[in-house]
Amino acid sequence: MTVNQQILLDNRPQGEAVESNFKLVQSPLPTVGEGEVLVRHHYLSLDPYMRGRMNDSKSYAQPQPLGEVMQGGTVGEIVESRHPKFQVGDKVVGMGGWQEYSVVNPSVPGALRKVDTTHVPLSYYLGAVGMPGVTAWYGLVKIINPKAGETVVVSAATGAVGSAFAALAKARGCRVVGIAGGAEKCRYAVEELGFDACIDYREHPDTKTMAKALKDACPNGIDGYFENVGGYIFDAVLLRTNAFARVALCGMIAGYDGQPLPMANPALLLVNRIKLEGFIVSEHMEVWSEALTELGGLVAAGKLKPRETIAQGLAAAPAAFLGLLKGKNFGKQLVKLV
Amino acid sequence: MTVNQQILLDNRPQGEAVESNFKLVQSPLPTVGEGEVLVRHHYLSLDPYMRGRMNDSKSYAQPQPLGEVMQGGTVGEIVESRHPKFQVGDKVVGMGGWQEYSVVNPSVPGALRKVDTTHVPLSYYLGAVGMPGVTAWYGLVKIINPKAGETVVVSAATGAVGSAFAALAKARGCRVVGIAGGAEKCRYAVEELGFDACIDYREHPDTKTMAKALKDACPNGIDGYFENVGGYIFDAVLLRTNAFARVALCGMIAGYDGQPLPMANPALLLVNRIKLEGFIVSEHMEVWSEALTELGGLVAAGKLKPRETIAQGLAAAPAAFLGLLKGKNFGKQLVKLV
Repeated sequence: MTVNQQILLDNRPQGEAVESNFKLVQSPLPTVGEGEVLVRHHYLSLDPYMRGRMNDSKSYAQPQPLGEVMQGGTVGEIVESRHPKFQVGDKVVGMGGWQEYSVVNPSVPGALRKVDTTHVPLSYYLGAVGMPGVTAWYGLVKIINPKAGETVVVSAATGAVGSAFAALAKARGCRVVGIAGGAEKCRYAVEELGFDACIDYREHPDTKTMAKALKDACPNGIDGYFENVGGYIFDAVLLRTNAFARVALCGMIAGYDGQPLPMANPALLLVNRIKLEGFIVSEHMEVWSEALTELGGLVAAGKLKPRETIAQGLAAAPAAFLGLLKGKNFGKQLVKLV
Repeated sequence: MTVNQQILLDNRPQGEAVESNFKLVQSPLPTVGEGEVLVRHHYLSLDPYMRGRMNDSKSYAQPQPLGEVMQGGTVGEIVESRHPKFQVGDKVVGMGGWQEYSVVNPSVPGALRKVDTTHVPLSYYLGAVGMPGVTAWYGLVKIINPKAGETVVVSAATGAVGSAFAALAKARGCRVVGIAGGAEKCRYAVEELGFDACIDYREHPDTKTMAKALKDACPNGIDGYFENVGGYIFDAVLLRTNAFARVALCGMIAGYDGQPLPMANPALLLVNRIKLEGFIVSEHMEVWSEALTELGGLVAAGKLKPRETIAQGLAAAPAAFLGLLKGKNFGKQLVKLV
């Protein structure tokens, strides 16, 4: 009998998340019912939003239940099918969770989607041509909605969202400025991802120096900001916004551990007549098809070359996830299972 | 020779604004050039935004220049005309400033508007049927855009903006909850202005007790918020917002003196996928006609009965203005000059 390794949420973080919040278990391979398929996961996606769900607090999503398999996006291959539209060997993307196999009913809307790996590597469907890519697309196109020549800024620039954001914004004629941690990431952002400039937040660890760096990198001010981080970086960006700037608010990773991070001077939202919108991309399924088409096209054309950091084997997932929260990954963080 | 009394900004506030920031002077009556008119001001409008302009800091408007007449809205009567479309005796609204008379070129767009006092008292054109009324209209209609049955909240409930907001929101079938300072204002809000409930912030002086009071007053949560105040009241409102709530950000009076007031937990903007927009109504002249028509209709129908606090004589303006900043006024703060 094949074993299905799984990682459960064993207990909730007290402040910072730690490896002992998770528990690796061995389960029997689940059986496949009529109309269902068995998926063997090739890659597991690790994403910042998972940290929020580890808390037992009010948020847009239900908390991750204790003692259950950690939820998360996966790509893989059908290894057994009792559904007429899926064949063994089909490549699929779904929400299989932190485990090696999952049984899925593909008739449930949104549960499983077949993907074409002719021009796009399978793992990209968890990143640039998946949820993070669509997140970048929605924030840029539907909220920031930039005109050519405007300046847009994204934090976590070399991550899955940031790299897609850069390609999408360049395609619209914007000046794109990134913020990332470390000289190597900043160099990569400019040389490989198409950013016009990238600011190393480690060199600018407070609001004042970050605002100065933004002034240099954005000589015409900031018209749009894609917020992934929160805290002093957001404060510094607000100081450099132009009148009528737009802010797409997607993550505030800096505040997931422990205390909420305040916004130092919200009056700037009024002074600069800013439009700000919080969103989660799973509530906007109507844009996915259009967004994925554009993102897949950018990948096929070589204009979006996302980087990946790949951990090996399910047991490596907790450490890789904690590293992601600290910015140790470089590009999309994945766990390779096959 | 008739004298024109004027109040100048003599020096900028160091922290809290004080009476000695202003200076009363006597000037000769200005002469009327070809194409101009002389307006005798009946009422001067005092508004919170004036405090922001007293500072020498970046904002949406230029700072009020030192040594010049304080800027501000006025209603009055034409007493001399060298313009073919204005006759002596015409009632007009304009931006005459803190003085008894002003010379205006009515051909400048937005400089002077004739008003009809048949159904609407002249002073209302500085309040419910003027800039504050249009401010309420824009925030409610263009930003919050509520559906019937939704709950909307406004701070500074009995002020000129708040009272217009209540009438406009009731006309759209909303539950309207106000926040005001003192039992008398709260009673007035409910009994005369049509609020469904009003919370006395003096009884709820911190985020936690205010959030509890909001929970009681808004059993279905908050769908729209018109922000006039900032600080802990805004923090408490955010804690009670529903998913997809909208926030119209118009004033943050609590932060005008000295230090910026932080927003305690901006991550709630993401958690509840909030849409927030800062605006100033003078940048949306395209809505004024529609808004003023609705507001005038509500006044004529007895559905908008704004209250006024009237100081007597120009010399009383500085003290009345400082009182307004502390919430000592009850309804629209005016200075009667004639």
